[in-house]
Amino acid sequence: MSPTAIRYHRGMGRWEPNAQGRLVQAALLLYVERGFEQTTVAEIAKLAGLTERTFFRYFADKREVLFWGAGALQELLVSTVATAPESEAPIATIRSAIEAAGATFQERREGSLLRQSVISLNTELQERELIKLASLAGAMAQGLRQRGVPEPGASLSAEAGIAVLKIAFERWVNAMGEPDLPQLIRDTFDEFKAATSG
Amino acid sequence: MSPTAIRYHRGMGRWEPNAQGRLVQAALLLYVERGFEQTTVAEIAKLAGLTERTFFRYFADKREVLFWGAGALQELLVSTVATAPESEAPIATIRSAIEAAGATFQERREGSLLRQSVISLNTELQERELIKLASLAGAMAQGLRQRGVPEPGASLSAEAGIAVLKIAFERWVNAMGEPDLPQLIRDTFDEFKAATSG
Repeated sequence: MSPTAIRYHRGMGRWEPNAQGRLVQAALLLYVERGFEQTTVAEIAKLAGLTERTFFRYFADKREVLFWGAGALQELLVSTVATAPESEAPIATIRSAIEAAGATFQERREGSLLRQSVISLNTELQERELIKLASLAGAMAQGLRQRGVPEPGASLSAEAGIAVLKIAFERWVNAMGEPDLPQLIRDTFDEFKAATSG
Repeated sequence: MSPTAIRYHRGMGRWEPNAQGRLVQAALLLYVERGFEQTTVAEIAKLAGLTERTFFRYFADKREVLFWGAGALQELLVSTVATAPESEAPIATIRSAIEAAGATFQERREGSLLRQSVISLNTELQERELIKLASLAGAMAQGLRQRGVPEPGASLSAEAGIAVLKIAFERWVNAMGEPDLPQLIRDTFDEFKAATSG
């Protein structure tokens, strides 16, 4: 195994107790070790100690393993927007939502880094990632409109949030040491404001 | 033919004189009439009065016909960034570049609308569109860095510009009458600033 995968294994400490979590772990390890294209569903299932049939109960294909968290992430963003104080400025609401998302990535940094290293090597996966980000922006914009924020302000605030998330995430991935994603998100929002108000 | 396609045909007035332009026109007409998936390269070539072999001299596949302008668009953005006044704020430079891009879309509104209607019906084409937009942001950010603009300001300014282009373009596509894209881009930049500085 590569140093990264070994660290990941150690970082995880143990295998996830549930089948879906084990399949995600096994898939990430194999994608990093052998490459995404070279890994088969059969190999993922075997490493996770499960059958291919079980794999397909959770995921439509091996690409979806990398995006299984997108639904929960969208729910988190949407519920943060929905429960924000009424008087809050839309961009402040978006900032809170993106910070909350950052905190969940921070909790599983090793897994996020491995996932990113797999995606960065494959154009098709990058396209999929971009469309998921666009969906997140769309969902947050809708959440703002439901709170009475008019267009184009709702969409522009949401797009700004996703742009900040993208850049802050890149900085977090490439940073040495123990960077804190929520803090990087706060810094990047401030820098964004400075850069675009010039 | 549909009313849109007839208007397009009338709007064009005549077939483009060069083979590449004719292939693009023929492809757009067929994609709108029959759907992207249902159209074959043979049909496109036939409508353009050319051979399949000629088609493949210009385009790798029928998807690429929809993105043939991306290279020129990127050059326009990059050269606008490169030739901006030295003292100009980075976000003002990005604004000029996006406005220049808007002017080229404005010149061929009918074709842009048809193209957009084809892309909006196909997830794979939408993903491709998003990755092209991400490349444009990357190219502009690189242009700013070459002018000495530090990160993350360079990337954030470029991402802001692409977010504005995306929203302004949507407004332009959905607007009735004779909307002016460069003007919509200027308005959207102002609204973006108002929305994100709150």
